[in-house]
Amino acid sequence: MPIQEPATSSHRTAPVHTDPAQVTLESALLALADPVRRTLVRELAGAEDWARSCGSFDVPVTKATLSRHFAVLRESGLLEQRDAGAKRLNRLRRAEFEERFPGLLDLVLRQDG
Amino acid sequence: MPIQEPATSSHRTAPVHTDPAQVTLESALLALADPVRRTLVRELAGAEDWARSCGSFDVPVTKATLSRHFAVLRESGLLEQRDAGAKRLNRLRRAEFEERFPGLLDLVLRQDG
Repeated sequence: MPIQEPATSSHRTAPVHTDPAQVTLESALLALADPVRRTLVRELAGAEDWARSCGSFDVPVTKATLSRHFAVLRESGLLEQRDAGAKRLNRLRRAEFEERFPGLLDLVLRQDG
Repeated sequence: MPIQEPATSSHRTAPVHTDPAQVTLESALLALADPVRRTLVRELAGAEDWARSCGSFDVPVTKATLSRHFAVLRESGLLEQRDAGAKRLNRLRRAEFEERFPGLLDLVLRQDG
């Protein structure tokens, strides 16, 4: 019998997060080296916490690719997500990431491209 | 007829450099995301300019792979090289890279791993 998704969410499983304190430098640098992920991070930096749903980002990638980008951002300690009804909401973990890698996120947010 | 290398150098061609001012954030982050390249950068940061030859680094990679790592470091504005006899000598472009990406190199040098 197929597994039924809960009616309240379009997401199959709850998001798994990595504590920024546990993130390696390599993971952080690779997460931020991708231009689509930098766009997501910059848009989140310009928004209120939890204001942006996953569907609200206008980036030129498929839904599956976007989902993978969100996973990489969670794994690198940059992103917290929570489900609210059918939407998955997002928060940039700016303070925690700053504590782990001082100056790195600000550097990225200041740069073009 | 095979091309003869000059007797004074084991390197086929002169190294090509990228001005740190022209380096993209993506190139800088990807260069520093690799653990072998971070080892090279850290060792250079602890040495005098031009004190280290390419053969002096003890990293667990083949000569061809090491050569590629040096090329990536040149392309990302982190490394300057010059040939001196049979040796290729190295200098970390610390000040120029710092001007282009303030704080990034120091962050990497402060971190473990």
